[in-house]
Amino acid sequence: MTHQAAIALGQSLRVLAVAETDGAALVAADVHIGDHTDLDALRTFAKDCDVVTFDHEHVPGDHIRALAADGVNVQPSAEALRFAQDKHAMREKLTELGAPVPRWAPVASLADIEAFGTPCVLKAATGGYDGKGVWIIDTPAEAADVLASGVRLIAEEKVDLARELAAVVARSPYGQVAAWPVVETVQDGGICVEVIAPAPGLAEAKATEAQELAIRLAGELGVTGVLAVELFETRDGRLLVNELAMRPHNSGHWTIEGSRTSQFEQHLRAVLDYPLGATELAAPVVVMANVLGGEPGGMRLDERLHHLYAADPAVKVHLYGKAVRPGRKIGHVTALGADLAETRARAARAATWLRDGHGSIGS
Amino acid sequence: MTHQAAIALGQSLRVLAVAETDGAALVAADVHIGDHTDLDALRTFAKDCDVVTFDHEHVPGDHIRALAADGVNVQPSAEALRFAQDKHAMREKLTELGAPVPRWAPVASLADIEAFGTPCVLKAATGGYDGKGVWIIDTPAEAADVLASGVRLIAEEKVDLARELAAVVARSPYGQVAAWPVVETVQDGGICVEVIAPAPGLAEAKATEAQELAIRLAGELGVTGVLAVELFETRDGRLLVNELAMRPHNSGHWTIEGSRTSQFEQHLRAVLDYPLGATELAAPVVVMANVLGGEPGGMRLDERLHHLYAADPAVKVHLYGKAVRPGRKIGHVTALGADLAETRARAARAATWLRDGHGSIGS
Repeated sequence: MTHQAAIALGQSLRVLAVAETDGAALVAADVHIGDHTDLDALRTFAKDCDVVTFDHEHVPGDHIRALAADGVNVQPSAEALRFAQDKHAMREKLTELGAPVPRWAPVASLADIEAFGTPCVLKAATGGYDGKGVWIIDTPAEAADVLASGVRLIAEEKVDLARELAAVVARSPYGQVAAWPVVETVQDGGICVEVIAPAPGLAEAKATEAQELAIRLAGELGVTGVLAVELFETRDGRLLVNELAMRPHNSGHWTIEGSRTSQFEQHLRAVLDYPLGATELAAPVVVMANVLGGEPGGMRLDERLHHLYAADPAVKVHLYGKAVRPGRKIGHVTALGADLAETRARAARAATWLRDGHGSIGS
Repeated sequence: MTHQAAIALGQSLRVLAVAETDGAALVAADVHIGDHTDLDALRTFAKDCDVVTFDHEHVPGDHIRALAADGVNVQPSAEALRFAQDKHAMREKLTELGAPVPRWAPVASLADIEAFGTPCVLKAATGGYDGKGVWIIDTPAEAADVLASGVRLIAEEKVDLARELAAVVARSPYGQVAAWPVVETVQDGGICVEVIAPAPGLAEAKATEAQELAIRLAGELGVTGVLAVELFETRDGRLLVNELAMRPHNSGHWTIEGSRTSQFEQHLRAVLDYPLGATELAAPVVVMANVLGGEPGGMRLDERLHHLYAADPAVKVHLYGKAVRPGRKIGHVTALGADLAETRARAARAATWLRDGHGSIGS
């Protein structure tokens, strides 16, 4: 999706991919196959690039610092990216900045967890995604296995959650920041399944509070490119920062058709230090639903697309060229509309149909 | 731009390009370098393709027929494409179908031109584009040089032109057709410089007439993929067919942001025989302006973009990765808005600024 944006801007996108079958490697013209944890591969890749950026958080900070020391223009910097790579570092920094976060503490033993109190949520400081690296425990004893694994952990209070939101912004090295409307993100089993823009029923003051928080964090942390601030909205109306992502993020996929500037274009504009694009909504309601891999068998994806397009000529489909595995994000769909319930239903129907290839797709 | 659409649909686009520096060859992952007039190159290229289609009209009809005889799925067919390749064949066919065309005749001699009458417009039957291959003559004597060149010609009456319009549709092999709103195309020196959607002040009945004509022609000619019907609107209110293009066309570039389905996505959906996408406008007014190459010197294109983005965060820029030559189309810009004059001014200002890199871009 970044390549789609790069094409319009006349930019030559070079991709570092672990395998030729990676989604980005399948579509880009200039592909280096190599491991992002291999400094030599990174150095060879970065040679002659105007700017190097990321679509995940797994490049080691020391390698990024080494590239920067070589004179490579890396956006965002290792110093900023650290707060999207390490939840302990992120919680510490946000606490220092006075940003609202759940009560938390680093924990390394049963005694630490007893002291923190249960029930609570344990999170791996690094490496978690889509619900992996998160454990909800009711008693300290339930933490035995994960403690024994030696993974570095933080504990967080179980938040009395009303729903999850995301405030997505982009910031350029020059310091310009642009914010998209705050969205609601709907999770199922730790995986984001749906994003609704704008977040339904969110008071304007709350939306502004979320945007201002994201803008402030982008500046304080020195983020360049897209920053997605995942938020908990509690039942008593508070906003707490859950996670940070410093790259185009699932909570911003709706912007491809749903905003005047997509997060992919904006990320490129930001890391290239161009002035940022307009972030207005393109319709009153925009709903993105992730397409997950379904069980094997049934219609070919190609045939599923046929039926979907016949049933809904206006839904937009994005497939990532990934091999289908049950529960894996293999694409997303976006519906634009005027009515919230109808637009959500269209997006959900399309995503479910592409996953299952059976059931009802007719109107 | 077709590759951008192919990425979203999860399709692997293979490109046949004459040179590695061709715009499409710069961005696609699977590029064959070869000449589209070389049947062997075409055969090698077409091997294992689900469908072969075109972004220009210069593949010889005999080669397309040979591919089809090999079992290659070519869309559109040579039989349809002929009417976009050869103006004589096109005029003859449209006349046979009773479609409205300017008065015309094939001409091969001074006597033919005298019989047709002057002033008139001479057009090369094949190979013309952007005003090339078109000669307006006031007396038969002015035709001496072009007649001597041996180029195959037709003569057409000089139409009493109010403006030019385009009706762009897409048709699938299954026979489904979808039409975008009729647009006005503004030419300067034979080159399209601006496209306005929808065509300002066009009565609904006239717009419907143009769409129905394009839909009928798509069916009668057996077109698959995008068909752009370029039209003359005469001062006495008639619509006459000027030209046909059977591929994504400059008069449809506005659809990338300006319609729910872009012409590039629609072309792929059509040639793949998917159901077609919704063609609604995304804003009350959409204006596309071509970016022409300017005189050498001045700011780098990169710097021009900086200033443009600062002046207008909402304008969308598409650069084609082409070397800059004065007057060559090197990209386009699209502005969406509610007010016709303001939206036209924004698009024109952006295109002029990117061409010249001096003058006023501030508001």
